[in-house]
Amino acid sequence: MTATMPGRGPRTAGVDAAEVLRRCKQAVTPALAAAVSRLDPASREQTAYHLGWTELDGSAGSGGGKAVRPALAVLSAEAAGADAATGLPGAVAVELVHNFSLLHDDLIDRDTERRHRPTVWAQWGPAAAILSGDALLALALEVLVEAPSPHGPEAARQLAATVRELVRGQVEDVAFERRTDVGVEECLAMAAGKTGSLLATSASIGAVLAGAPGPVTTALHTFGAEVGAAFQLVDDLLGIWGDPSVTGKPVLSDLRSRKKSLPVTYAVHHGGADGRELAAWLAGTGEPSEPELHRAAALVAAGGGRDWAAAEARRRMALAEKALAGAELPAGPLAELVGLGRYLTDREF
Amino acid sequence: MTATMPGRGPRTAGVDAAEVLRRCKQAVTPALAAAVSRLDPASREQTAYHLGWTELDGSAGSGGGKAVRPALAVLSAEAAGADAATGLPGAVAVELVHNFSLLHDDLIDRDTERRHRPTVWAQWGPAAAILSGDALLALALEVLVEAPSPHGPEAARQLAATVRELVRGQVEDVAFERRTDVGVEECLAMAAGKTGSLLATSASIGAVLAGAPGPVTTALHTFGAEVGAAFQLVDDLLGIWGDPSVTGKPVLSDLRSRKKSLPVTYAVHHGGADGRELAAWLAGTGEPSEPELHRAAALVAAGGGRDWAAAEARRRMALAEKALAGAELPAGPLAELVGLGRYLTDREF
Repeated sequence: MTATMPGRGPRTAGVDAAEVLRRCKQAVTPALAAAVSRLDPASREQTAYHLGWTELDGSAGSGGGKAVRPALAVLSAEAAGADAATGLPGAVAVELVHNFSLLHDDLIDRDTERRHRPTVWAQWGPAAAILSGDALLALALEVLVEAPSPHGPEAARQLAATVRELVRGQVEDVAFERRTDVGVEECLAMAAGKTGSLLATSASIGAVLAGAPGPVTTALHTFGAEVGAAFQLVDDLLGIWGDPSVTGKPVLSDLRSRKKSLPVTYAVHHGGADGRELAAWLAGTGEPSEPELHRAAALVAAGGGRDWAAAEARRRMALAEKALAGAELPAGPLAELVGLGRYLTDREF
Repeated sequence: MTATMPGRGPRTAGVDAAEVLRRCKQAVTPALAAAVSRLDPASREQTAYHLGWTELDGSAGSGGGKAVRPALAVLSAEAAGADAATGLPGAVAVELVHNFSLLHDDLIDRDTERRHRPTVWAQWGPAAAILSGDALLALALEVLVEAPSPHGPEAARQLAATVRELVRGQVEDVAFERRTDVGVEECLAMAAGKTGSLLATSASIGAVLAGAPGPVTTALHTFGAEVGAAFQLVDDLLGIWGDPSVTGKPVLSDLRSRKKSLPVTYAVHHGGADGRELAAWLAGTGEPSEPELHRAAALVAAGGGRDWAAAEARRRMALAEKALAGAELPAGPLAELVGLGRYLTDREF
């Protein structure tokens, strides 16, 4: 949680994580494009737009996100001693599942913008987002059972179970919005479903496809789950104290929607008088004023939410690295996984 | 298309189709319940309600529909010389996919009632219907890759591809509502995706799991696809001329929503002056009066839509039976498949 630049400095284990992401994305994109080309024309068009491959006018897009999950899948194949190609069907499948869930979640949350562009449901309507998401989910599992690896079906089984975990997390997220008594443990369990489960599967699916022994896939799975927890904690910190020029969101963004994120929930339950004042404010309605937002952020900090979340993120990242250290992985992929994990969780806030 | 009672008389090949459905449903229900029990609590509750296992007050439900798709899956295993148990994972999976698509389609179509009960989205909100549908789709493919049969992954691959076909059909259905120039061939292709593809997979997935030779699974797949086409044609005829006491829908039901069903589309394109009058009426808006509805039904008939749809349904059912006849199936399952196909398509209108 230092103020180093992402992807630089000693905390990234000497690895240029941005370069690792670029290499993996370059390896995965053709296979992902081949999979997407099998969709019906409408779902294909909407998916290409959603992935940042095209703009609404049909021109070439900026290329979309960092593709963290496919990178983890490729690195996990390499960590199991296989080549990147062995992990490719897994990389494609986790990226398809990630985007299926974004398409549906944007509709569920009624988010009209993603990366400063209209979301698919906002542009084409709810039916388009539901149906193209459905097609991506089916396609993800299809890609795995078609994989040349004899372990494709096992990878498909694990990814399908992960989708049930994703759904559980999202169901809880929706339910929590209406509740005022959600505890820290429930909140962490929800995040484990919504964020951790797919990162855990991403970080192990390449090793599953490579037929790696149980302890190796388990270590990689734990690594991904703990990185996911740390990532969510840091993301929640950035949602309050992140630099708008870096996050692309307004100052104090999550407080504007009175979101009961992890640091907020901690402060409510463990922050004494500050927590009670914060809880009363969260129960309010209407557009909060700027002074109210700054007061709420101060209450989260005074109630211990900021320090707890930062410490918990560090603790989870240490658990992630400890899991890998015990698995006797080859040095190169090990360093790249650790570097990528730190890159994702070692952001300024 | 005679006026015999469903499931009786010589046209059902001496088979009591209702009894076949009961037997198959009894075999499949425990396995389906075991699969559903793996869902998160919210999705599980909504699915049990949707399937007719429970009512909103938690009391026992009436037990839901006929479970045609699981019956086809079980019969297709038996047609391949295997026992019913071999087909069970396929039966569970096709029923889960069918219900995933109903949950999403009810939301897309904004249908607030199914079988005279509130739909899941109407009762629990859009997020619930999206998420429980997603969980059912993932679970369906999970059940297949976990199947004891070594052919489970191939069955999963075919079912995942079928979901893409289902999505294509539904995408076209949504798009056709806004178009006025949809032709008969396009309409048949849409129905092949929306109805035929899952019936074709249902009627062959048990044989796939049994490791049946290609010609057998192909014959069963063709049978299901043709039964699906005939079923859709008959369903569209019943949507106009069905007896409300049998269909559970109002008289002239499909015309009330100015639905461009297959007989309507045929009459528009091949009905001369009647078709042109019908097309003009379809382009209108507002609640149609009863005399308007009767005039529209008369135009569909005068434009040849009723006779064409009935003849086409008979032709498709003959193709279905011809496909099976060439596959040298054992006499018992063959008769039951034919009987079930006729039961589904030989309804009064």
